[in-house]
Amino acid sequence: MPKLHADATLVPSTQRIELFSDGVFAILLTLLIIEIDVPFLADESFPTVIDGLLRTLPHLLSFAFSFFTLAVFWVNHHHFFSVLGRTDWVLLWHNMHLLFWLALVPFTTAFLGEHPDVSLVAAIYAFNMTMAAAAFTLMTRHALFHGCFTTTEILEKERRALVRKSQAGMGLYALAAILAFGSPWVTWAMILGIPTYFVVPRLLKR
Amino acid sequence: MPKLHADATLVPSTQRIELFSDGVFAILLTLLIIEIDVPFLADESFPTVIDGLLRTLPHLLSFAFSFFTLAVFWVNHHHFFSVLGRTDWVLLWHNMHLLFWLALVPFTTAFLGEHPDVSLVAAIYAFNMTMAAAAFTLMTRHALFHGCFTTTEILEKERRALVRKSQAGMGLYALAAILAFGSPWVTWAMILGIPTYFVVPRLLKR
Amino acid sequence: MPKLHADATLVPSTQRIELFSDGVFAILLTLLIIEIDVPFLADESFPTVIDGLLRTLPHLLSFAFSFFTLAVFWVNHHHFFSVLGRTDWVLLWHNMHLLFWLALVPFTTAFLGEHPDVSLVAAIYAFNMTMAAAAFTLMTRHALFHGCFTTTEILEKERRALVRKSQAGMGLYALAAILAFGSPWVTWAMILGIPTYFVVPRLLKR
Amino acid sequence: MPKLHADATLVPSTQRIELFSDGVFAILLTLLIIEIDVPFLADESFPTVIDGLLRTLPHLLSFAFSFFTLAVFWVNHHHFFSVLGRTDWVLLWHNMHLLFWLALVPFTTAFLGEHPDVSLVAAIYAFNMTMAAAAFTLMTRHALFHGCFTTTEILEKERRALVRKSQAGMGLYALAAILAFGSPWVTWAMILGIPTYFVVPRLLKR
Repeated sequence: MPKLHADATLVPSTQRIELFSDGVFAILLTLLIIEIDVPFLADESFPTVIDGLLRTLPHLLSFAFSFFTLAVFWVNHHHFFSVLGRTDWVLLWHNMHLLFWLALVPFTTAFLGEHPDVSLVAAIYAFNMTMAAAAFTLMTRHALFHGCFTTTEILEKERRALVRKSQAGMGLYALAAILAFGSPWVTWAMILGIPTYFVVPRLLKR
Repeated sequence: MPKLHADATLVPSTQRIELFSDGVFAILLTLLIIEIDVPFLADESFPTVIDGLLRTLPHLLSFAFSFFTLAVFWVNHHHFFSVLGRTDWVLLWHNMHLLFWLALVPFTTAFLGEHPDVSLVAAIYAFNMTMAAAAFTLMTRHALFHGCFTTTEILEKERRALVRKSQAGMGLYALAAILAFGSPWVTWAMILGIPTYFVVPRLLKR
Repeated sequence: MPKLHADATLVPSTQRIELFSDGVFAILLTLLIIEIDVPFLADESFPTVIDGLLRTLPHLLSFAFSFFTLAVFWVNHHHFFSVLGRTDWVLLWHNMHLLFWLALVPFTTAFLGEHPDVSLVAAIYAFNMTMAAAAFTLMTRHALFHGCFTTTEILEKERRALVRKSQAGMGLYALAAILAFGSPWVTWAMILGIPTYFVVPRLLKR
Repeated sequence: MPKLHADATLVPSTQRIELFSDGVFAILLTLLIIEIDVPFLADESFPTVIDGLLRTLPHLLSFAFSFFTLAVFWVNHHHFFSVLGRTDWVLLWHNMHLLFWLALVPFTTAFLGEHPDVSLVAAIYAFNMTMAAAAFTLMTRHALFHGCFTTTEILEKERRALVRKSQAGMGLYALAAILAFGSPWVTWAMILGIPTYFVVPRLLKR
């Protein structure tokens, strides 16, 4: 008779984990905006409104950058799970680990929007992304090297390339965190540049 | 052996992108309300409560208008994807582009509710909708003219009509943004009128 | 060749509308809680904490009542759609109409939690529920009497009974709104009593 | 002819209840973070930022602990429903009962983050978890002992073990609530220890 808790066995479908993760991604993308307060306006003259918007600008920029970064994570998550035919308990927890760091993004984004020019705050934002990329790397490595989760055979060369790409993202974000102590604007440039680097060349290739 | 990243190939199903987008739409529709603070009442007499409600009225109206507009977007999104049998990487990013502008709606809605009579604020709201309609137009054009994504053959005349309808929405919202500098109330009328124009005639036809 | 916009035709599946509505319900149930602020405590002594909790009590009660009411709506929605095999454009908009009134619930709930003893506020809460029940009635009537949406034949007697039940809920909430001007506590009793009346007898029957 | 309201009959699929619950879990996991306000900084010097972060630390810790606990609930929920092939009306309401207590978690988490060293607040947090575990126990017992919901036969010994495990969680959280009145730090240790105890041994076994 079957064991009720499928600890040691592979769960044969990835559907519920994908839908659950999609829910988390969808909420994170939309929650980012409610951290941004409408600017307070002392009066309703044109210069005051412009001034209010300029004060909100760092928040809108950190919103846009985080939206873009989370979108890249979602697309990669989507592609990664589309080649998996199975999950196991460990993969479930690797995914939870990833979602944990992503769930912190609205907080670190709001903090960066509030203090765009503070090195430590920029470093914390980049550290958050570093940990998310690390969680993604660990999940990828587990699925591609410690079991047969993929629906089709994938060449070891390709599997290595995939994990390496994830590690590269992790390394770049770690660098962005360190360079923040030189200048936070370097970090701002990198948190826009890293997801751009992962997306734009492929879009242009087409 | 298959390439792990299906950059150049068509993703054979639209299900996950639809569910993800549904999640975003569902959250946006409900997030709109939590931007509205309960009115502060100095005392609990009948006139004070009425007065508090009247102060909240612009927020409730901008909530209702945005709810209605997002509902129209969802219905169109729903219809659009129901004729697609495939997606590709570019379509995925067109969809993300659309969701980005829609994700800003709770912010511009709250801003409009706070300052209903300020031209610039009304213009920003209409600009937000212009960009969302533009993203929808770009997505529609990509899917209908640059690949074979639809499950059934659709006449070129009809495809053109569909893109044109999307462009019309974009143009009308751009006009609403410009006319705000004449009077914000024209913009208010248009942001109610535009989705009404897209929905009510069809409902009456039945 | 098929028309792209299926205005006049029946959409053959209810799945996406169900999933979208589930998303909205799931968010509403959970959003209710973030309208409740943690009570401010002047110091951390036992009586102060108890006092803070007592001040929060009306909010927690209005949260619990709304959670329960929305749960009843979800269960009824779930049952209603489980007998439908098709939707059309009008049903889609009836559903949106229902979701609009439900989306207001976090606001009216927070307002009631803030001013539990104000007649007008209790009446507004009950009015919100009246409109939601009205939307549900309209949706039910459309699906059961103006088309062939159900997967199995349902006796007219039963269809009438179903619409009547929905109308009864609407009438009771309207009564609760009116009686609020006598005493808001009657409304409180009714907003707990109405969903209880719809659920508990059936649970006991089993 | 079929009865429209399937009160007495078994609903043949668990899919919609699973998706709905997934939505609630996904939102709860992400809502936890927006209860945390960005720390106010009087100036932007390094010590001030560090000080602001230290003040936020209890919030971040209570966030992390609740995220972890809700993740364990989700994994157990996921496993539990994966062996069920059917639901009924009573199970639906047991599930709603569980979601009710889980929906309170963002509130009790924020309260604990605000007052990490207050016994009563820690006790309330642990009481919340006790009730959630109790709801899970009741749901499990109903599904495993009062009907044939499972897709495969499960030994009575195993069914008893499963319910007992759920009861153990309930008992441990009740203990954590009581011990809070000795020291809240015991409760903090237990709210980290209890989910760890349910997860880590199984992860190590692999």
